[in-house]
Amino acid sequence: MTYPLLTLTTDFGLRSPYVAAMKGVVLSINPAARIVDLSHGIPPQDLLYCSFFLKNALGFFPPGTIHVVVVDPGVGTARALLCVEAAGHLMLVPDNGCWTEWAALAPSPPRVWQLTEKRLWRSEVSATFHGRDILAPVAARLSLGAPPSELGTPVESYVQLALPTPRLTPERWEGEVLFVDDFGNLLTNLPGAELFIKSKQIANIHIAGRLVTRWVRAYDEAERGTLVASISSGGHLEIAEVQGDAARRLGAAPGTPVVVEFEGGGTPERTRLE
Amino acid sequence: MTYPLLTLTTDFGLRSPYVAAMKGVVLSINPAARIVDLSHGIPPQDLLYCSFFLKNALGFFPPGTIHVVVVDPGVGTARALLCVEAAGHLMLVPDNGCWTEWAALAPSPPRVWQLTEKRLWRSEVSATFHGRDILAPVAARLSLGAPPSELGTPVESYVQLALPTPRLTPERWEGEVLFVDDFGNLLTNLPGAELFIKSKQIANIHIAGRLVTRWVRAYDEAERGTLVASISSGGHLEIAEVQGDAARRLGAAPGTPVVVEFEGGGTPERTRLE
Amino acid sequence: MTYPLLTLTTDFGLRSPYVAAMKGVVLSINPAARIVDLSHGIPPQDLLYCSFFLKNALGFFPPGTIHVVVVDPGVGTARALLCVEAAGHLMLVPDNGCWTEWAALAPSPPRVWQLTEKRLWRSEVSATFHGRDILAPVAARLSLGAPPSELGTPVESYVQLALPTPRLTPERWEGEVLFVDDFGNLLTNLPGAELFIKSKQIANIHIAGRLVTRWVRAYDEAERGTLVASISSGGHLEIAEVQGDAARRLGAAPGTPVVVEFEGGGTPERTRLE
Repeated sequence: MTYPLLTLTTDFGLRSPYVAAMKGVVLSINPAARIVDLSHGIPPQDLLYCSFFLKNALGFFPPGTIHVVVVDPGVGTARALLCVEAAGHLMLVPDNGCWTEWAALAPSPPRVWQLTEKRLWRSEVSATFHGRDILAPVAARLSLGAPPSELGTPVESYVQLALPTPRLTPERWEGEVLFVDDFGNLLTNLPGAELFIKSKQIANIHIAGRLVTRWVRAYDEAERGTLVASISSGGHLEIAEVQGDAARRLGAAPGTPVVVEFEGGGTPERTRLE
Repeated sequence: MTYPLLTLTTDFGLRSPYVAAMKGVVLSINPAARIVDLSHGIPPQDLLYCSFFLKNALGFFPPGTIHVVVVDPGVGTARALLCVEAAGHLMLVPDNGCWTEWAALAPSPPRVWQLTEKRLWRSEVSATFHGRDILAPVAARLSLGAPPSELGTPVESYVQLALPTPRLTPERWEGEVLFVDDFGNLLTNLPGAELFIKSKQIANIHIAGRLVTRWVRAYDEAERGTLVASISSGGHLEIAEVQGDAARRLGAAPGTPVVVEFEGGGTPERTRLE
Repeated sequence: MTYPLLTLTTDFGLRSPYVAAMKGVVLSINPAARIVDLSHGIPPQDLLYCSFFLKNALGFFPPGTIHVVVVDPGVGTARALLCVEAAGHLMLVPDNGCWTEWAALAPSPPRVWQLTEKRLWRSEVSATFHGRDILAPVAARLSLGAPPSELGTPVESYVQLALPTPRLTPERWEGEVLFVDDFGNLLTNLPGAELFIKSKQIANIHIAGRLVTRWVRAYDEAERGTLVASISSGGHLEIAEVQGDAARRLGAAPGTPVVVEFEGGGTPERTRLE
């Protein structure tokens, strides 16, 4: 009942032969593999961005999907390569923590193996392209039905990405921008589900020296050009400009602080959203 | 005889998890669906651009293809979502008119349904991502053989996009740039088949304060750097710079006026092209 | 034993309907064709770039793969269109030499046919889009099992791309940048396997008025921001900035000269790399 669905997520961009080479390696070993491009536009070596991407994308795929993720600032160093089993999916990924936020959404903890079975790798392994020489051939074996336990040895510890966590004080939420999408919408690390505190009113949102006062459910509730706050489709506080580019307008980028300020008020603020 | 071919056209870009999420939703419902990326580079919320794209791309696909198009400035508002049957294809698309120019090429009028059967949608529908929560699952059902009539109720009226139409006077054709491709070639709304009037000679083409006087069939008929006019592979007047970028050189963009000026002459001008 | 795997490599970019149209034409003729996007980001009409791309990507695909390559500055002129058989692969490509560097890696010389059988083309052939009107339908026939000999007539001569070849003097290697990847890494035409001359020591690498003195096997051996030299995963001298963008930092681009200067020394320099 395994589907040979194999997704690719990289920071390789589309002008270089790297993605093509990986696809060739997979299809040479399993010509029936069904490769699905997720993105090759992760910003170079940006693990936080990759983590956010994976958390918001992978959960929609069916159990049995194999994910190959290559954002790998440490390529060629002694960092391990992992096979992760989480939420019924398998992932092949460098040991850099970009996957742990995704795996934490699963009901049970991940199982992790370090790739050590060199006979499953390409016979010549370069120092700078483990995606092609190790991850791609191993993914092809998985898609042919090899169990993770054949790829290497189980490990109990692995790198955890230091995620910027939002901070709640009596006066406000303090978070930051995690991700800017191609529309220029700013996705923050402030979780929509926890943003509204029963005894607090939200007064203003501060970002990049500006106030955002307008909450919407859909962008079109406000005029073109208005800065608005909403809960994103992924469940985070999102700052957007209606039919515009909030990132450009505010000069905001991943890391830009976002503060949600409470009033002294009493009734649940949730209603403002509806 | 339905093929489970399912194309995706969006303005989501490639850095965000939105396209990946849609693919995951489709493959979760129909793991055998064959997804074909057409473009995720439609300029954000640009319905005219999308209309031109669809008109020039979809006709080459086989009957039975399912197209999912998500360029959706009105997401989350009361705008309807449609299933369109035209030219033997099916399309799922917000009711914003970006599809009507394509459908007008078909010999018979389109049949249109509004998506109302919520049991076919994802159980939780966000306010800002109907592509993932409504269109993707419905497309997967279509690819499994569900007929459009099961998706919702037939409708007779829908949004028509206001297309900039060219204007013919005794002295000239007046049109505009519709589309700039990745080479910087300028595709206009002046239809090649009607451009050459029997009793008129074309004297000059005016665009962005410049004259274009050279007609070619293929770019290489003129020297590198020459501004040339030709009839595009899609049948429109096209302005290009040989081995260069006409958009950058002229500072032209969608909306830039283009005037084709007639001489007083007599013989059919068509010959200039051959 | 032919797989209907069909790869696409073009300079069309992703904002225009050209790639979509080609996919539609292929799938209309062979709905079971499995299309694999290699890249649509080859810089417009850049044959050297395309040659480098193909050489570094195609060899990883299984025998029987069909490659369609459309980088075609001469579209619409009298230049021929070719079917090339090399290394057990088939390629459809304009006669512009972008494929010969790839084919030269094969143990036996290529077999080449000129496409002349017009009954296999689209019934109407435009002057500016032979990818859609000739190469795509012919590729679909190949994927259905048509032998190359049915497509046209064998030819013995074809365009050879003038490749910038590196020059070895007693004092140094002289080469140039061929390719810049999306990380800003500079791939040169200096072959890693021949760079280290038994009786010579490498003193410095000169590029864009700067010295590069640090050799690494993996980028992470040096501090962030260091300019480093290494042998690329494709076997060429590569100049990179650790976790940075060497192209931007050096203002380097394809064509930028690179000089590898020898010392007078004696022991083989190869050891510096290990």
